[in-house]
Amino acid sequence: MRHAVIMAGGAGVRLWPLSRRSRPKQVLRFLGGQSLLRQSYERVSTLFKPEQIHIITNQAHLPLVSQEIPEVPTSNLYGEPVGRDTANAIGLAAAVLHERDPDAVIGVFTADHVISPLDRFCDAVQKAFGVVEQHPDALVTLGVRPTRPDTSYGYVHRGARLHEGAYEVEDFIEKPSFASATKYLSSGEYYWNSGMFCWRATTILDQLKKHLPQSHGALMEIAAAWFGDERDARLQSIYPKLMRISIDFAVMERADRVLVVELNCQWVDVGSWPALESVLQSDGDGNVAACSQVIHLGSRGNIVVSEDKHLIATIGVDDLVIVHSPNATLICTRRDAQGIKELVDNIRQRFGEEFT
Amino acid sequence: MRHAVIMAGGAGVRLWPLSRRSRPKQVLRFLGGQSLLRQSYERVSTLFKPEQIHIITNQAHLPLVSQEIPEVPTSNLYGEPVGRDTANAIGLAAAVLHERDPDAVIGVFTADHVISPLDRFCDAVQKAFGVVEQHPDALVTLGVRPTRPDTSYGYVHRGARLHEGAYEVEDFIEKPSFASATKYLSSGEYYWNSGMFCWRATTILDQLKKHLPQSHGALMEIAAAWFGDERDARLQSIYPKLMRISIDFAVMERADRVLVVELNCQWVDVGSWPALESVLQSDGDGNVAACSQVIHLGSRGNIVVSEDKHLIATIGVDDLVIVHSPNATLICTRRDAQGIKELVDNIRQRFGEEFT
Repeated sequence: MRHAVIMAGGAGVRLWPLSRRSRPKQVLRFLGGQSLLRQSYERVSTLFKPEQIHIITNQAHLPLVSQEIPEVPTSNLYGEPVGRDTANAIGLAAAVLHERDPDAVIGVFTADHVISPLDRFCDAVQKAFGVVEQHPDALVTLGVRPTRPDTSYGYVHRGARLHEGAYEVEDFIEKPSFASATKYLSSGEYYWNSGMFCWRATTILDQLKKHLPQSHGALMEIAAAWFGDERDARLQSIYPKLMRISIDFAVMERADRVLVVELNCQWVDVGSWPALESVLQSDGDGNVAACSQVIHLGSRGNIVVSEDKHLIATIGVDDLVIVHSPNATLICTRRDAQGIKELVDNIRQRFGEEFT
Repeated sequence: MRHAVIMAGGAGVRLWPLSRRSRPKQVLRFLGGQSLLRQSYERVSTLFKPEQIHIITNQAHLPLVSQEIPEVPTSNLYGEPVGRDTANAIGLAAAVLHERDPDAVIGVFTADHVISPLDRFCDAVQKAFGVVEQHPDALVTLGVRPTRPDTSYGYVHRGARLHEGAYEVEDFIEKPSFASATKYLSSGEYYWNSGMFCWRATTILDQLKKHLPQSHGALMEIAAAWFGDERDARLQSIYPKLMRISIDFAVMERADRVLVVELNCQWVDVGSWPALESVLQSDGDGNVAACSQVIHLGSRGNIVVSEDKHLIATIGVDDLVIVHSPNATLICTRRDAQGIKELVDNIRQRFGEEFT
């Protein structure tokens, strides 16, 4: 049977001060009232019934996720005691799903992207499932057609064409130089690595066994106890010991048969404040705002996020990120937004957990 | 008898978003917990008993002022129905005081300055009263020794020396050019016009009668009814019709006998956010803060004001004014801080009174 796994781990520290340990970015509602997790669920639910949809997240966030997506049965919510990156999260979901349904075919979806239009997304997902059902040994990645030479994304270099919109993967490239990214864009042979995948549970588990045997053994041990009394004990004792590694490094770059299905969509990784610019309407001066009460006087290129009742007013400032939350406000230049992690570490040291 | 009149009118719109129509700058407590009005009262109360201290403010702010300075008898609080600038506020206080005490000698003090040290302030005030008692026809202004070529203050050019620290006034100069201000500074013959004065009630009323006869007549009419049932009716019907004009324009620049007493103090007009820089301790990077929870990462020359429980965090921003209030936040460049009045007008139009 087909299943959807939504990856909703990660803290999203680069979206501080809105994101907090207790309130991760997936459940924030700063974009049109719907959280990114909700948007992801709504997309996926056009193709899957709630019983086929599974969400993996941090254990501490299970109540939040359950509240945000009440449609999904709680037995389909998987909690990681700690984050151990995508190889282990995906592996855990696959191992548990394989326990439940040995013939499971899994689509893996992210919960921190803005994707549109919906119909193209659905077409690509349907095609990916079709490809997997036709090539049971394949790992399929969804590749987004690039629209600019972005140097912050990973790229997938496509090879031989299987059929319309589906290709062998020639190579994975980590964040390239601007020159390379420009070449990739004009060649038409490269996609952005979307972090969304499709495969049979047995296939991804076989590949994990081959390329990440320690994790594979541990995850199978946890999964074997999933529906018994030992689940939590095994999770707590085994999972934290796993090595942090991404599915791309651990498996995709080394696997036997990797294919890419083209996703011709607007696709924005809302992992940092500057990314908001792509998904929000700008005023005549290049300012964007994820809130209604903003006023600029001679200011240009600013990104403003606030609660709905709080007014943000600027005069003569350019290219700033301004984010207001109930107990903390961030003001930084757009180019310094990558420093937020360091900032939050400093804040935790100086002022304690209250603000982080 | 000697009296002190503290001028606590004015809205302080340039200190938005902390100052509001309902909460003028004089009662804000962003500097060390004491409002500027309280600081002014504490200074003056080292020389005057509470019964000798009078406060003139907007009628709407009388309850706030009374709460802030409970020591002063409510009969010493004078409310203006509307602001009509310093000539009329000073004239009203003088006319009422003259009703109460025909021999009144009045020191006029501001409520929006930071002044230190206290002993030099007291010395200058004592000297000013001494000069007035010796020269009953004189209007005395307190002149602050300039410490930099400031172009935002008015200057007093001193003439012949009466005795140590007291001079005839040669001339008043409105905000000068930088070149002139530099010349004034090096000559040693110029003072900043502090807005603080000393004179006999009869003398200032005579001079008002001569140079601003309409106001004089109106104010005498109000004062004559001050201790009867007609006070409010006369205030409401007469005061709003008075012409807005400062005591400097109306009287000081044209009066018969004007003297200046030197005030050798730190004296900061906290009328705008950039002025805070002079009265707050800066960190190693030139940032100052009127709050405790501030963190800067690679930011320089910023002025930050916030409530105590709200954290302000910046990365890589320079020379900004950042002011957080419960329902609005201002971010502007230091050089654009004079645009706050226009900003607040825009906010009132777009979002209504709630934020102003």
